[in-house]
Amino acid sequence: MDTLTLDLGNRSYPILIDSGLIGRPEVFRQHLSARDLAVVSNTTVAPLYLAKLIRSLGERRIVEVLLPDGEAHKTLGNVARVIDVLVANQFARDCAVLALGGGVVGDLAGFAAACYQRGVAFVQVPTTLLAQVDSAVGGKTGVNHPGGKNLIGAFHQPRLVVIDTDTLASLPPRELRAGLAEVIKYALICDAALFDWLEEHLDALLAGERLALTHVIRRSCEIKAAIVGRDEREQSERALLNLGHTFGHAIEAATAYTQWLHGEAVGAGLAMAAAMSQESGLLAAADCERVRRLVARAGLPTRVASVSPTKALSHMTLDKKVLGGRLRLVLLRRIGEALVSADYPAAALERTLAAHFG
Amino acid sequence: MDTLTLDLGNRSYPILIDSGLIGRPEVFRQHLSARDLAVVSNTTVAPLYLAKLIRSLGERRIVEVLLPDGEAHKTLGNVARVIDVLVANQFARDCAVLALGGGVVGDLAGFAAACYQRGVAFVQVPTTLLAQVDSAVGGKTGVNHPGGKNLIGAFHQPRLVVIDTDTLASLPPRELRAGLAEVIKYALICDAALFDWLEEHLDALLAGERLALTHVIRRSCEIKAAIVGRDEREQSERALLNLGHTFGHAIEAATAYTQWLHGEAVGAGLAMAAAMSQESGLLAAADCERVRRLVARAGLPTRVASVSPTKALSHMTLDKKVLGGRLRLVLLRRIGEALVSADYPAAALERTLAAHFG
Repeated sequence: MDTLTLDLGNRSYPILIDSGLIGRPEVFRQHLSARDLAVVSNTTVAPLYLAKLIRSLGERRIVEVLLPDGEAHKTLGNVARVIDVLVANQFARDCAVLALGGGVVGDLAGFAAACYQRGVAFVQVPTTLLAQVDSAVGGKTGVNHPGGKNLIGAFHQPRLVVIDTDTLASLPPRELRAGLAEVIKYALICDAALFDWLEEHLDALLAGERLALTHVIRRSCEIKAAIVGRDEREQSERALLNLGHTFGHAIEAATAYTQWLHGEAVGAGLAMAAAMSQESGLLAAADCERVRRLVARAGLPTRVASVSPTKALSHMTLDKKVLGGRLRLVLLRRIGEALVSADYPAAALERTLAAHFG
Repeated sequence: MDTLTLDLGNRSYPILIDSGLIGRPEVFRQHLSARDLAVVSNTTVAPLYLAKLIRSLGERRIVEVLLPDGEAHKTLGNVARVIDVLVANQFARDCAVLALGGGVVGDLAGFAAACYQRGVAFVQVPTTLLAQVDSAVGGKTGVNHPGGKNLIGAFHQPRLVVIDTDTLASLPPRELRAGLAEVIKYALICDAALFDWLEEHLDALLAGERLALTHVIRRSCEIKAAIVGRDEREQSERALLNLGHTFGHAIEAATAYTQWLHGEAVGAGLAMAAAMSQESGLLAAADCERVRRLVARAGLPTRVASVSPTKALSHMTLDKKVLGGRLRLVLLRRIGEALVSADYPAAALERTLAAHFG
């Protein structure tokens, strides 16, 4: 078993990575003391893993909250549903909320845990590659508002992250590819060696080979834990983790969050960020092409035919408004080195959008 | 103008206390940089102070959110209403939410500010004595759940607290008395000299004399700021601020939150905590009588005829459940010194409840 630590002083927590963890009672006996536990999952994941997880949780008072599957259900109304269950069962401040599922379940359950009695313990058991390499680590929780993604939320770190790599065996290939987008992101912002490794082992990852997947999960969690440990509240360095996400959010918003998986939009966003970096004179053309090719080989889109450049820009400008001030983008200086910049030629953004949208 | 500081490192903030502050543009010019501002108030307070406040806020983009008056409206649904307005106006992370009103408005607006985009700036302009001496300072925000008070919330400190003592001129006498309960609480837990002062000047306070009120507001804020500065998240010392509140919450719950003001329930709770401290052999009988007499002189109830001792105990046990573990009570060793204890004779609690309920 790999054990990483996200170091945040007295709020530090372990990230456990191994095959079969959900079926091992000693993992939860050792790391989770709460006697009252609410397990939040969805109707797709629960039939696969919930019974096994509950057996491993042992003698506790356990209540289940099952949500419908999908981004459309990441709402404040469903947070209230989780809290209703906690209240109805008179759960105390020493209870814990456990999320079993992908990013939607983890973000929503984490926000419920953040709000209930001003914060109770929270455990992540992510079952998608994207949640395992990204959303389950780092304490960003929240739900969507009809007006935008993740507009309501809190920073609330989990006490424990349990990554059972066996769950990837049941993951649809499209979800696996979406998760790889975030792995490529980590390589691009700070690990050129990982990028080389991905070029070499992408076929093994796409084939679902366990050793290859475990390697990228561990490395992704290492990178994210280090960055969040230095900048928990995104005052500076953590913003680099948004590489490809300003483009990606515009894609998701312009397609009403229904057609693209988040990871697919990030994949296209990475190709666009690389192109934008090249257009701005930061990134060598050959490296830009390496990025585009790896994203494409991962089965991820690199452009968006159904959205016009004008519409994309308007959604990015909304995103800018949300960030306050000028449109800041995460750009690449080289593969393995990113920077946040608002200082790029306007024409570079126009050319990038024209080349990738419509 | 009195200026206190709640010292929390880079989250420290000023607490300004003076007559006429709402009408002074320089206060907001100096301490509040946000250009986009949502002012949350209620339909009772807004007609009195909102226009003047907005003139003082100067050239900003200001949107108003008016809630109905009263504890019944401190709901997650109304938090969503505030957030809807922020989203509809495309407010960015650099916006601010300003609460103009009493504890309900402050708690609710503060929680909306805590959740919007995982936290935006928040300003308290409290207009009731209770909010000025207690709820506007210290960062506890939240709303009620049908199953219990303040069950949904966050710790989210304001950036600024503006206490305009002129607002007390419009405060109903019943609300003034309710606020005095929290002032007596501060004296009991850590300031015997303040208790002496209150015994001497209570009539001036009840008559609304400005100098006397300003004195107790300043001293209350000093005490609360010092305690919260040492224990923001109620890991230890901050729990002393709950003196009288376990009894008080039971009174509020047993009367369905409709008949008693929070401060009235706290007033009775202080008399009960003193009696319980005497029954437990901690507090001298003469001091217990001084507490009871001051609460009564303040026009606050000291017992609850409409609730049976059994019903009161069941609500306290629920509160215990919420706190996790044994029923811990804040007790008095003497006037000016409190302690948290779960180590008292069960019979002492029975006698205390029998003497004060039914």
